[in-house]
This record gives sequence, structure tokens and C-alpha cells, in this order.
Amino acid sequence: MGKTVKVGIIGFGTVGAGAANNLLKNHDVILERTNVDVKLVRIADKDITSDRGVKVPAELLTTSVDELIAESDIVVELIGGTTIAGDFILKALNAGKAVVTANKALLATRGAELFAAAEANNCDLYYEASVAGGIPVIKALREGLVSNNIERMYGIMNGTCNYILTRMEAEGAAFEPVLKDAQALGYAEANPSLDVDGFDTAHKAAILAGLAYGKWFGLDAVSVEGIRNITQLDMTMAGKLGYRFKLLAVIKNIDGAVRISVAPTLIPANSMLGAISGVFNGVMIEGDTVGQTLFYGRGAGRDATASAVVADVVDVALNIANGSVRRVPAFRSGSKDVGLVNIDEVMSRFYLRLTVKEQPGVVAKVTDILAKNQISISSLMQPEGNADELVPLLIVTYATPENAMQKAMDEISKLDFVAEKINMFRIEDI
Amino acid sequence: MGKTVKVGIIGFGTVGAGAANNLLKNHDVILERTNVDVKLVRIADKDITSDRGVKVPAELLTTSVDELIAESDIVVELIGGTTIAGDFILKALNAGKAVVTANKALLATRGAELFAAAEANNCDLYYEASVAGGIPVIKALREGLVSNNIERMYGIMNGTCNYILTRMEAEGAAFEPVLKDAQALGYAEANPSLDVDGFDTAHKAAILAGLAYGKWFGLDAVSVEGIRNITQLDMTMAGKLGYRFKLLAVIKNIDGAVRISVAPTLIPANSMLGAISGVFNGVMIEGDTVGQTLFYGRGAGRDATASAVVADVVDVALNIANGSVRRVPAFRSGSKDVGLVNIDEVMSRFYLRLTVKEQPGVVAKVTDILAKNQISISSLMQPEGNADELVPLLIVTYATPENAMQKAMDEISKLDFVAEKINMFRIEDI
Repeated sequence: MGKTVKVGIIGFGTVGAGAANNLLKNHDVILERTNVDVKLVRIADKDITSDRGVKVPAELLTTSVDELIAESDIVVELIGGTTIAGDFILKALNAGKAVVTANKALLATRGAELFAAAEANNCDLYYEASVAGGIPVIKALREGLVSNNIERMYGIMNGTCNYILTRMEAEGAAFEPVLKDAQALGYAEANPSLDVDGFDTAHKAAILAGLAYGKWFGLDAVSVEGIRNITQLDMTMAGKLGYRFKLLAVIKNIDGAVRISVAPTLIPANSMLGAISGVFNGVMIEGDTVGQTLFYGRGAGRDATASAVVADVVDVALNIANGSVRRVPAFRSGSKDVGLVNIDEVMSRFYLRLTVKEQPGVVAKVTDILAKNQISISSLMQPEGNADELVPLLIVTYATPENAMQKAMDEISKLDFVAEKINMFRIEDI
Repeated sequence: MGKTVKVGIIGFGTVGAGAANNLLKNHDVILERTNVDVKLVRIADKDITSDRGVKVPAELLTTSVDELIAESDIVVELIGGTTIAGDFILKALNAGKAVVTANKALLATRGAELFAAAEANNCDLYYEASVAGGIPVIKALREGLVSNNIERMYGIMNGTCNYILTRMEAEGAAFEPVLKDAQALGYAEANPSLDVDGFDTAHKAAILAGLAYGKWFGLDAVSVEGIRNITQLDMTMAGKLGYRFKLLAVIKNIDGAVRISVAPTLIPANSMLGAISGVFNGVMIEGDTVGQTLFYGRGAGRDATASAVVADVVDVALNIANGSVRRVPAFRSGSKDVGLVNIDEVMSRFYLRLTVKEQPGVVAKVTDILAKNQISISSLMQPEGNADELVPLLIVTYATPENAMQKAMDEISKLDFVAEKINMFRIEDI
């Protein structure tokens, strides 16, 4: 039997219970594969009496985080949030213990502080489960694709949003009722903002961008827009154009500067990313050597997330057993200070949906403003309507700088026949 | 600057040139990410004068493999074949040098011998590029998904076959002319058998199965069938049923025994695997914890393969620099002797295409034989025809043991109205 490495889990919620279950149930197969006895020795939570649906020996449970840190070689933080969770991680690192976490919000906002503590204490700090749940995409990015300059990454990384968008498309339904149903079914939180307004995806995008470009971009570096504005008509029209809506994280290296954005985006329905439906996640990584790669799987859920957490635990345990701590450190800065692309200057194709009062000259006036702003139209559709009725006017543009687009929209929205807010979405021809 | 690790490449062909190019071009980004100076010091080939389309310093080139082994910490074998390549690898390992190879045929046939030599000499032996080219699927399987019992794997792992099948479907074309065109375009070899008869995919399937189940199954463990028998009519009918043909490797754990097969298979056209077109590869891995995952990218080609080769080189270099050689060894046997499922007893749904002489009682006689063999029909199609004309009869079955299917086919093929060979393919409802 190989060396024993002791593991403590802080937080006995859904993911904590999953990780405990995985460590106990698959202990022997992990031992066979690694020759390391990865042993769960402690689980700490404020509440150690509620049933979590996972059988663990009662003597593992404690309410004392200090006790857990003292008794563990690896401390797994699964309580979430950006305050106490961070304090516990710092306490563990300062006690010389390795840390595994799934806490994307904490990493995106306080990553630099945590990485510094890991380095100062010569400890490992791993966080595979923070991005795209069970998909081993962080390992792929920094090990499997280590020899690549990363040119582009596209991520569908929020299962709640993808579930809602998939149902809206399949059922021709509007956002609100599908959200309500998703909440009833447990696919969306009571307060859905973190998911549907794009912030959860933004945390993950910031982490991926940091790893790809050797600079820990804060959340402020990410341009964020959620999915609330997508209407049934937009869904239908996207479908007719051969596209499909996804909440898409886009990370691009443009001449040495980086663009990080999260926005509802039209992507080709027949593409690999377009085929990702329901709660599944996918991350496409394009490298200068490997070309296009895609990593797909469950982005959330008790067991899928546990799979990534325990993979990290095993990685750290292998480092401890082989004397190779920080073989792949928590984060390594690059030598260049990578800047951000001004999002307003990014070129994209756009989908625009105006609501206009049907009258002579509508199309001429709108297209005139676009032309004056150097915006070329790739296609235009106006369903037949009766005079003075409100009808949609759909326009798809060629690649256009976002600031030119915004300027044209400001002018168009002032035309007296334009009713309601103009809906504008980016198109990515992946 | 970190520790220097010296790399020598044996074989300056397509992939060798790609690996050399990648090591030289991206040396600095690898150094930044790993703090290891991964330095290409030697390239050996019989021919060191031909232009390989890659600029390398002339002093790196040698015709002496012995010289290369002596001067390198890591020896990269990229000459292919199962004889001399194996000798060079053994020579390197016996000299205490780590080895990286992309040689699937060698691993599938002589893996046990090479792994024993790596263990005896306490050396690393890595082979990411042997399966699915640039996709880091071996790393995913044995590190990212280390905490999973592997339940199933499906692989589209031969770019040549997938290119041919994609074009046959898109163009309504037959196998032979598309193969000829693929040969003219360089997507298929002059002797295409290794690819189109399924052996290349079988090598890869044997490697994946070995890693998943801790037993190095030889090539004999794989049931292999190629794509030559798929006709235009089969393609069309599969499409009408909502399926698509892929040369699919299937690795399944059935009650503790393993089935490994490679065969042209109908899979749902709207599935993630069904969406993989052209020369791209994809491997779906289902674990008991993570659920379904998919890894997608280029399965061949100079640069994609080089990406995986250099990722292995960096992994080994990190082991050397951190004193953690064999942290993840070439292969580790499991404690259980995993048996093989008798392929004849495996349950599958089947697609059958008979060619029959149109006459009364044809369907009754065929379905009677199926019924006697306990085979249930899920759907049956017979286009209208004239008496005594040859017409197709299409049958899709429910899950049926392969031996029952084979027995029924033997009986049906003896019916006097059955002309030509019966075409039979498995269906996987992934």
C-alpha cells in the first residue's frame, strides 16, 4: 500500500457530500491507479446532523475547521462565498496545507491573494471544479495544451442558462415562464441573477483567461450581459438564419491584447458548440499548434463537480507522495503585461431587431444611418404588415466595430417610427 | 531560468518536423508556464538533407540514434512501425532516458514489453499522441477523470474514415470514388487498409481500454470491422431513420468484463458524436461520477499531433525538474484480471438491409425467421417495386444478442428470394 494522504472537506453541502461519497466509494480504484492511499479523514460543517444523502462514518464529522486543518494534508473548501471561504483557505495555506476549491467567485475576485499565500507557504492550490464542473478543462488548458499559444476560447459554461435557452428554443417559449419552471425543477436558483445575468459565466471566463495568458484578470476585465432580453421572436429568427442563441463566453487574443466577454450570442446551429443542449457545458479552445479542441460534459451537479474536486485532490496527493509540490503551481504569471482590448473596438457581426411602425421610407431611413456609420448589411428581413402597424425589422450586419454599431443604434432609436428598445446581439461564426 | 531538460527527436518526418517546430517556436511560452527550459538538442533521421518545411539549426541534425540518446534526457520516437522503433525505445529506456512516442501500433502490440522496460529503468514513457492526435484524452482519462470507474467509451478516432463518411453522406457518393479522391488529396494513404479496415482505430481502442481497466489488452481483444461495406443506400436510409454512419470504437464495461469493438455504426445524427465531421476526432468517456464527457479535436496532422507530443515532453520535463519521475507511470496494472465479454453475446440494436426479389410472402418469411430467433423488429421499410424486381428490405431491430442475429442472418440468406449479401450494422443510441 502506498503513502497515505489525509483529506479534509470543509462544507458538507451538495458538492461536499458528493466529494465525500466519491472519495469513499472509489477509494480503491484511486489507490490502484496512483499507488496513493487518498484517505478522507474529516468533514467540517456548522450543521453535522442533517442527512446529506451520503453515508459517511459519524466520526469523520466535526464542526471545527481548525481541527480539520490540523488533521489534514489536503483541505478541500466547498462552502462557497467570497469571505469566510477565503479566510479558511488562507488559514489552511498558512498552516502549510494544500488546498482544493471549486469556488469560482472567490478565485475570480481574490485569486491573486490566494495564489500569493500558496506560493509563500510552498503549497498546492488547485481549482479544476471552478470552471465547467466535471470537465477537466483547466488541466487540458495548462497541461494537455501547454505547448500552444491560445488564440481563442469559447465557453458555454452555465448549465442554468443553457437549459433555459434550450427549452425556449424547443418550446417556442418566452424567458420568464421557462425561468419559473426551471426554478420549480431546481435547475435555477430562487435568485437567478448570478446565472441568468452572466456573472457566473464571467467568473469562469476570468479564470480561463488568466490561465491562458498568465495574468490574473479581475472580474472587471469581463464585459458581461445576460440572457433576459432574448425574445421568442429573436429565437425564431435566429433559427431561420441557421443560428442558435447561447450565453457565450468569448476570450480572444487580438494582436497581443485580450478580449473577455460574456453575452447572449448567435452561433451556427450545426456547429459543435451549437449542439450543446440542456444543462451541459462545453469549452472550445483554439491553440496555434493543436487547432480547434472542445471539452464537453456536465458543468454542475453533485457528482460531476465532485469528479473534478477529487481529481484535484488526487493530483495534489500525487505531488505530496512524489515530493513534487507545486509541480504545476496554482498560477504562474507571464513575463508580458497583457492588456485588454477595448470592447467597443472589437469587430463583430450583429443581429438587430427593430420594432417599427409600418410606413413608407422606414427601411431607407434605417439603412441610410447604417451606411453613414460604415456598417454593411448582410441580410435584411421585414415581414409584411399593414400601414401604421408595429412590425419587426431584422438586420444582420457584416463585421462592424461595436462603437460604430452603438452610435448607429443611438441614431436609429431616435427615428419617430422606431418603437420599443432595439434588440442587438453578436454573431460568432465559430 | 529554470532547469534545462534536453530533448532529442528520432524521425524527422511529418510529425517529427511538427514537434521540432513546436519546441523551437513556443520554447519561451513553455518556459514561462513551467519554469523548465525544454531544449531541443538533437534530431536523428536516416535522411538529414531533405527539406521538411521547418527551419531547424543544422547542427541539431544527426544520423546517429546512439549519439542522440546519449545527449538527450528525453527521447521522442516518431519513426513509426513496430520493429526498429521499438528497438530504439528500448535502447533509450535501458540508457535511463525518458521516452515520448506517438506509435499506437507499437504500443498496442508491444506495450507490455515497453512498460516493463520503463519500470525496470525507472523512466517515464508517455504516449498522448498515440490516441486521437492533438486531443489530450489520455491525460483526461487517467488524471482528469481519475476518480471515475469508466462505464463506457465511444471513439471516432480515424480522420480518414470520418472524412470519407462525411463526404459520402454530403455528396450521396459511394465509398470507392470518395476513397480515391481522399487519396489524391492526401487524406488517405496509397494503401488505405490500416485506416478504412479499422485497424488504426483498433490500436487506439486497445490503448484506451488498457488505461481505463488496468489491463493491457492486446489487439486480439478488439473485434474489428471497416467501412468498405457501407453503400449509398445505407447512408440514405440511416439518414431517414435519424442516424449517421461513423466508424465507432466502443469500449464497454458489462458486469465487470470489457467489450472492445470497432465497427461502422449508426449513431443519432443530432448527438454530439454525430456532429463530428470531416477529419476531426472525438472520444466520449462516461464515468460513474462525472457522467458523460466528450473530448474533440484534430486526430492527425503535423501540428495537432505535435501538440500532444510536446505536451508529453513537457510533462516528462516537469517530472525530471521536480524529481517526480513516474509520478504517473507509463502503465499501472489493476488488481483484478478483467476479462473480455464474448462479442457474440453483446446486445445491440441492428440495422439490416436485404436485397430481395419482389414476390408474395417475402416479408412474412423474413420476419418469421427473426421471430423464431427472438428478434423483435422496431421498424421495417420496403419501397414499392414490381414483381420479380430486386428491391431493398430494411429492418431495424430492438436490442438483440449478436449470436442470435448472426444465426437469423444465416437462415435468411438461404431464402431463395434473397439476393446479394445482407448488410448488417450495429446501432448505438448514444
